[in-house]
Amino acid sequence: MKSFKPTFIPQLNQKQPLRIIPLGGVGDVTKNMYVYETDQDIIIIDCGVGFPDEAMPGVDLVIPDISYLKDKINKIRGIIITHGHEDHTGGLPYIWPELQVPIYTQRLTAGFIRAKFTEHNLPKDQIKELKIDQTLDLGSFKLSFYQVSHSVPDSTGIVIRTPQGIIIHQADFKIDWTPVSGQVTDVGKVAQLGKEGVLLLLIDCLRVDKPGFNKSEKSIEDSFEKAALETKGKLLITMTSSNVSRMQQAINVAQKTGRKVAIVGRSFENNFQVARDLGYLSVPPGIVVASDAISSFPAGKLLLLIAGAQGQSDSSLARAANGEHKQVKLSSGDSVVFSADPIPSTESAQNALIDALSRLGLNVYYSAVASDLHVSGHAAVEELRLMVNLIKPQFLFPIGGSFRHMESFSQMAQEMGYDKKQVLNIENGDVLEVKNEEIKLITRVEVQNVYVDGLGIGDVGHIVLRDRQKMSEEGIVVVVVSVDIHTGQLVSEVDIISRGFVFEEMARDLLEEAKEIIRQALQKHIHKGTDWRFIRKMIEDSLEKFLYQATKRRPLILPVVVEV
Amino acid sequence: MKSFKPTFIPQLNQKQPLRIIPLGGVGDVTKNMYVYETDQDIIIIDCGVGFPDEAMPGVDLVIPDISYLKDKINKIRGIIITHGHEDHTGGLPYIWPELQVPIYTQRLTAGFIRAKFTEHNLPKDQIKELKIDQTLDLGSFKLSFYQVSHSVPDSTGIVIRTPQGIIIHQADFKIDWTPVSGQVTDVGKVAQLGKEGVLLLLIDCLRVDKPGFNKSEKSIEDSFEKAALETKGKLLITMTSSNVSRMQQAINVAQKTGRKVAIVGRSFENNFQVARDLGYLSVPPGIVVASDAISSFPAGKLLLLIAGAQGQSDSSLARAANGEHKQVKLSSGDSVVFSADPIPSTESAQNALIDALSRLGLNVYYSAVASDLHVSGHAAVEELRLMVNLIKPQFLFPIGGSFRHMESFSQMAQEMGYDKKQVLNIENGDVLEVKNEEIKLITRVEVQNVYVDGLGIGDVGHIVLRDRQKMSEEGIVVVVVSVDIHTGQLVSEVDIISRGFVFEEMARDLLEEAKEIIRQALQKHIHKGTDWRFIRKMIEDSLEKFLYQATKRRPLILPVVVEV
Repeated sequence: MKSFKPTFIPQLNQKQPLRIIPLGGVGDVTKNMYVYETDQDIIIIDCGVGFPDEAMPGVDLVIPDISYLKDKINKIRGIIITHGHEDHTGGLPYIWPELQVPIYTQRLTAGFIRAKFTEHNLPKDQIKELKIDQTLDLGSFKLSFYQVSHSVPDSTGIVIRTPQGIIIHQADFKIDWTPVSGQVTDVGKVAQLGKEGVLLLLIDCLRVDKPGFNKSEKSIEDSFEKAALETKGKLLITMTSSNVSRMQQAINVAQKTGRKVAIVGRSFENNFQVARDLGYLSVPPGIVVASDAISSFPAGKLLLLIAGAQGQSDSSLARAANGEHKQVKLSSGDSVVFSADPIPSTESAQNALIDALSRLGLNVYYSAVASDLHVSGHAAVEELRLMVNLIKPQFLFPIGGSFRHMESFSQMAQEMGYDKKQVLNIENGDVLEVKNEEIKLITRVEVQNVYVDGLGIGDVGHIVLRDRQKMSEEGIVVVVVSVDIHTGQLVSEVDIISRGFVFEEMARDLLEEAKEIIRQALQKHIHKGTDWRFIRKMIEDSLEKFLYQATKRRPLILPVVVEV
Repeated sequence: MKSFKPTFIPQLNQKQPLRIIPLGGVGDVTKNMYVYETDQDIIIIDCGVGFPDEAMPGVDLVIPDISYLKDKINKIRGIIITHGHEDHTGGLPYIWPELQVPIYTQRLTAGFIRAKFTEHNLPKDQIKELKIDQTLDLGSFKLSFYQVSHSVPDSTGIVIRTPQGIIIHQADFKIDWTPVSGQVTDVGKVAQLGKEGVLLLLIDCLRVDKPGFNKSEKSIEDSFEKAALETKGKLLITMTSSNVSRMQQAINVAQKTGRKVAIVGRSFENNFQVARDLGYLSVPPGIVVASDAISSFPAGKLLLLIAGAQGQSDSSLARAANGEHKQVKLSSGDSVVFSADPIPSTESAQNALIDALSRLGLNVYYSAVASDLHVSGHAAVEELRLMVNLIKPQFLFPIGGSFRHMESFSQMAQEMGYDKKQVLNIENGDVLEVKNEEIKLITRVEVQNVYVDGLGIGDVGHIVLRDRQKMSEEGIVVVVVSVDIHTGQLVSEVDIISRGFVFEEMARDLLEEAKEIIRQALQKHIHKGTDWRFIRKMIEDSLEKFLYQATKRRPLILPVVVEV
């Protein structure tokens, strides 16, 4: 049991202990969801999705595990969303129907969530828009907000006044003095809070290893313009589909260089629509053309905003590169700008896509060969130091990073004079109790990955994924034997069917030998009344041994005993 | 048909046309194998392996396709190996048995190959050691060699005097004026060749996008020493297992800081053994201890060289991190140094391993948080420019990189004054003909990936991999129906077994419904004499439709019809 002893906590009403439970977002970069709880009330901050890794083949999305909330639903006063990125909003369509509580957030984020709910046929009346200066009374919690810069407009820091003191929940942010959206991180408000005395700061630690300050988003526009001027044919720009500021920069460049803009890709079109309708994009009339009108303009007069920055194989850009996109036909005068760095798990997919485009003779601008194509939305170390210095909280809780980032953040805080004990080092599911000038880890709740696969939520679990992995590496061998239920004798030939193991045409001898081995084993061991489970086990064991000796592979073996 | 028109080719005996066929290594970074052919003779340079990507689940290795050589084996005069890395030597145990020709290479490389052949029970008498100044007459080809720096000692450039002129085959290299091995790239010899007049230079282009010069390998030792001094417990250093110079530096640091050295991991031990036996490592007596003696030394007196730099899940380091390594038990005073940058496809595995080690409380040194832990073995752009300037070949052929690297290399060459046509832009399997002062692409041979999986070579193909992928994403559903061969009637219940699809316990209703759908379909359609293929197809179609509607997933469906 870890225990953090603060030296000073200001202005507390300590009657009500407070609990903080991260259900997702600690030790992983995505799937953000945090629970703040008193005896009477619960508020939830963020409700994001995670993305499957190699150990989760076939899984579409991962969502937080809300088992902890199941018997506490009537205590929940609302879900507050910090900003409009998938890893902070994407869990809502799956989780909100179970909670049905109000969702509070800023205007653009609300727009994105409404579009999501429309797609999932969910009611939208519980999505409540807030202005940045509005406060929110949710039972024991009084909330206010301040603006921060990030790669999507309307990103916020959340100030939570709790019975135990002020907590600031600062999810993704950066310090950008010249953001394209005009939304500068409100350091004045932040400094004031620092003076009031803050108990705990939860803060985005993803880029703590990045030295210095981030460049301003403004630096990107010149790179786009340079690419537009250098390109004789179509200019394609790909980026994260929610990056409204960067869309604006692309539109500005199109305007300057006399190109029309087409938006290609469903998520891109949706986000563009929402941002334009709500006034977050300034779009000169007539500049945007429908994607099915692309072929009616000369290539040199087109700028395409296209989805697929991470090289996703089903994205519009990947389909265009494979010649499979109806509207987008690529040819050698065209260029592609990748305005997004790969995330580690997508680097090889992005590289493969860059390769495919290079082979088509396109000019590709990407971070290894050109600068100023992308700036991160996450604070680098000097920005983190500034924020911590302005707020000067008693305790720090690094969120939204891996354990190595939390470790680096702790090092950084210690260099700034914090004691190691003042930097919380916990995991998803840990229950923190704030009481009597202490923050204690009091217990743990089980949080598992909940997988979304097709229409199913949670019906794909551990065993299913283990089987998928095994089959993907070694294939499957199905053995069918029919046995007379009365005599226990084989009544037909042993049949073997394999998939993903060996190419059957090339392995006839092997499979014939395998059948013979099963036949012999059965003749020796089965008779009237033999337990089928025993027969299955025997088939499995003898076949596994034989196949491993012959091939050094261990396919999944599935014995099927048909009683006739 | 592309055609490159040189303005000048020196001293040719053009009676014999020359063909060059890359079987692997062009447009991919690994699997290097190049064929040089005249009417009478063939020589092969390198015989490497590639590593499976996500589209090749379960595959152990990928080797070059030698179909082109099958009817020409008696023309092959030898295989020459440039240096001792897997992507240049690893194909030999699989391919050499089919060719059985002499293998020529330098001393350390020969040692590595001998160890490999011992492991595969292959004869070693055809492995021929060369000194760096030796020449080699192989029919129409006269070969000589020069030394280059790279991340393994005894790396070479190969000079091939052909009837059509001088060709230099420069696989992996860098320019390092103070290499740990003492083996400096022999720029003098290279410059002399440049004066003689070189027709074609094949050259490693992997790091063309890296600006400037590489740091010297020497810079690493100080970082190791710093880590050793900062670490109270065991110091673990992980790196590519063939990096003999870096092993030497670790040993030097152990000596200086009073630590014993243990080598952990099979490939690491093998390479260490070979390098030490051949005198490529200077190891003070008594400093190396067996890995099963680790527990008998105080942690602070140990330095472990351990395999697993890319985060491979079955590596010694990963097993140690999971508490599953017999000899290596980790605790919080220990440190781990990652002295290898991740390659794109392994970045997330490496990150996960760093995370796991951080969670154990270990101090982890890796490239994002510490500098001078690794230098690349491949020439950066200024090194490439130097080499091209020294050799001044008529034609350039960038090898060992992806298409985007070839494209960047071509840009670089054009900036240096080359015409675009002088930089060959071809693919594996392209057949180049050098004749009459021209290099022409005359035809293409089919080269496929040949997969090694367990003991099988080439028995896992396209269809098997497609099935593996499908099963890994959606699982498999096996449907068993028994039908009376005389009446065509169902004689037992429809049975459904699934793996990797849904957890059966949670999906009873779904599977019962599926059985009913199949039962109905069968009753409607089968009767005496019905074709089994038709029944199978019907089961597949009706079930696929039903399951997709119910779950939005498309598992592999395997209908088994048992006739009784």
